[in-house]
Amino acid sequence: MPAISIKGQNMPESPIRKLVPFAEAAKKSGKKVYHLNIGQPDIPAPEVVTEVFKNSEIKHIEYSHSAGNESYRKGLTEYYAKYDISLGVEDILITTGGSEALIFALQSCLNPGDEIIIPEPFYANYNGFAVTAGIKVKPILSTIDNGFALPPVEEFEKLITNKTKAILICNPGNPTGYLYSQQEIEALKAIVKKHDLYLFADEVYREFCYDGATPFSTLKLEGVEDNVVVVDSVSKRYSMCGARIGAVVTRNKQLMQTILKFAQARLSPPSLGQIAGEAALKTPQSYFDNVVTEYTQRRKTLVDGLNKIDGVVCPNPGGAFYTVAKFPVKNAEHFCQWMLSEFEFEGATVMMAPASGFYATPNQGLDEVRIAYVLEVEALKHAVKCIEEGLKAYPNN
Amino acid sequence: MPAISIKGQNMPESPIRKLVPFAEAAKKSGKKVYHLNIGQPDIPAPEVVTEVFKNSEIKHIEYSHSAGNESYRKGLTEYYAKYDISLGVEDILITTGGSEALIFALQSCLNPGDEIIIPEPFYANYNGFAVTAGIKVKPILSTIDNGFALPPVEEFEKLITNKTKAILICNPGNPTGYLYSQQEIEALKAIVKKHDLYLFADEVYREFCYDGATPFSTLKLEGVEDNVVVVDSVSKRYSMCGARIGAVVTRNKQLMQTILKFAQARLSPPSLGQIAGEAALKTPQSYFDNVVTEYTQRRKTLVDGLNKIDGVVCPNPGGAFYTVAKFPVKNAEHFCQWMLSEFEFEGATVMMAPASGFYATPNQGLDEVRIAYVLEVEALKHAVKCIEEGLKAYPNN
Ligand SMILES: Cc1ncc(COP(=O)(O)O)c(C=O)c1O
Ligand SMILES: Cc1ncc(COP(=O)(O)O)c(C=O)c1O
Repeated sequence: MPAISIKGQNMPESPIRKLVPFAEAAKKSGKKVYHLNIGQPDIPAPEVVTEVFKNSEIKHIEYSHSAGNESYRKGLTEYYAKYDISLGVEDILITTGGSEALIFALQSCLNPGDEIIIPEPFYANYNGFAVTAGIKVKPILSTIDNGFALPPVEEFEKLITNKTKAILICNPGNPTGYLYSQQEIEALKAIVKKHDLYLFADEVYREFCYDGATPFSTLKLEGVEDNVVVVDSVSKRYSMCGARIGAVVTRNKQLMQTILKFAQARLSPPSLGQIAGEAALKTPQSYFDNVVTEYTQRRKTLVDGLNKIDGVVCPNPGGAFYTVAKFPVKNAEHFCQWMLSEFEFEGATVMMAPASGFYATPNQGLDEVRIAYVLEVEALKHAVKCIEEGLKAYPNN
Repeated sequence: MPAISIKGQNMPESPIRKLVPFAEAAKKSGKKVYHLNIGQPDIPAPEVVTEVFKNSEIKHIEYSHSAGNESYRKGLTEYYAKYDISLGVEDILITTGGSEALIFALQSCLNPGDEIIIPEPFYANYNGFAVTAGIKVKPILSTIDNGFALPPVEEFEKLITNKTKAILICNPGNPTGYLYSQQEIEALKAIVKKHDLYLFADEVYREFCYDGATPFSTLKLEGVEDNVVVVDSVSKRYSMCGARIGAVVTRNKQLMQTILKFAQARLSPPSLGQIAGEAALKTPQSYFDNVVTEYTQRRKTLVDGLNKIDGVVCPNPGGAFYTVAKFPVKNAEHFCQWMLSEFEFEGATVMMAPASGFYATPNQGLDEVRIAYVLEVEALKHAVKCIEEGLKAYPNN
């Protein structure tokens, strides 16, 4: 049998994959499982999206321009303008989800062996994209004590070598939900400017900011226009993960020309998804207001509920719909598995993601879990109760 | 400004890209341009596809399983069964077009620096995917004299080194339209078996076979189940290029597990496209019969028309909807450009793809063009007439 490639062998598995069989067994045994492990919102897509297919005649499902339909990209410039970000159509290239935007950006900017600094814990698939591109992730630790704020500039400086080509941030963050302040983003600007690095900013959770905060996009930074590359996506914004539509946004013309070559090789982003994405641009503000109100309630339910449990520490995240909480357990992965296979409370249990999978440094976050608040308040309340009872009953603390 | 990656610099541009501005200028000047340069069929998608969105309520556009919806994969096993190919659901992974299937296969099987043998001329984007995966294409020349038949086994043997990991074929072929016989496929089997290579077969044009021929899929080969990897796509089969739905098919379990890890990192293939793809499985045989009848007429119009022109040689391809023809010119790229910018006949001209872009060996196919017969017969007739008049008027023969 011919061999598997080294990259293929090194590709990481998803941090929750090991738990999936236990969740399936739990369901088979008749338990209700609250899925707080995934990032697929339960909110329906805006009506403007679900209506568009019903009312249109789709006769030809053709390749679009490799950079995406011009009308959609034009529409996106107006979307960004609402955030006071001024872009031309040529600064936006439509991708197959934010995932493809990340791959294109990494491949276009970094050589195999080059290094990228990423505050950890971070979105676990960055590891897979790094393996794909053959590059090295240099994690920089952020901690639960200050809610996973940006590590100090000095810590970044310590990691920079002649192989360092980029810094990647996620704002608001998955898995932490942390929302970087303008000062933090400006601090990053100073570093990337000084060392002429790329600053990749994954801003796919832009719409999910709470307590009246407005996110500060890296696209607003002046003087580093050639360094900043934003990864965007409609997946979470409009609850249309399956559309597989994202974008890579940069004012760096030479980089955009390069990314376009990768885009041309794969021909076209999804046409049906682009129809949905363009329709979604007409989503009324009330949709987002409702979503933010809903998530604010869920966050309160989850965070307050968790912090009331003995020994649990849960920051109050400023954005996205995740939080990383510290549990009074030695090995959160084992606890998560135990919750699925050994425990139930009133016929139910909870599936969570062990946070260690979101750290690149071994043995970090062993007592932490990532929880997505993607269920309605009543379900969340019961889920929190399950966690509380589970922690009481867990024998391995 | 931070540097562009070496891969980014090496990514090839599409072979027709240089001609695009000339085509645009031609249109601007009022000329009608017959587009024989592209592989986007003008045939409408089957009604079962265009109906599915009108009649369904799409409320949640969710991520699917990373390998694609189980119901769709199950449906595909029945599709293959019609070709006497017996597969399990676990042998099929849904991808974002055949393009992603190719990238996944290359990345999972070959290490950077490894070599892949591909008969040339070949689908130009294989070059881009090879650059992406960091691997080396070793072209093996097929020639117009025998209609681009498979080169003899000895020629393959000559190219095999300890870096050779795979052979990639396209059957029926783009750009040649050549349909490999069962004997040719069996000859390839002997080579891959002897040297334990992967055999990647791009069979996205499977439905387009003429003169009553049935294509012989590599999935029918016995004794090389772990070597064979098929790339498939709905793009051409149902004229739904924009759905971005393809598949990678292999009975090699370890390889499939590896490909799944790449698939998990990018989360999900397009959900709307999968709905279209699953609906398309119900396409009646009459649709394909009509398409084949239509393309047979077009092929006849094109091939007969071209062969009547002084100095033109055009094989009669057994499949797909392309042909590579030899023109009595020194530099077909210059001729193609001249047709757009300098020439018109009855207000019209023709855009073709210079075939040199489909060869990896420099200076091959300089007097050849690839022509796609994706226009109706009347338009094709006029296009052929334009080519005839163009060749007469062209000053640089
Ligand atoms: C931080 C972050 N970036 C990118 C993605 C990729 O999403 P998509 O490819 O659906 O746009 C996700 C999905 O969960 C995410 O959480
Ligand atoms: C030979 C061949 N393979 C693969 C593809 C990729 O097509 P898609 O990604 O749309 O499935 C094409 C498209 O033209 C092709 O001609």
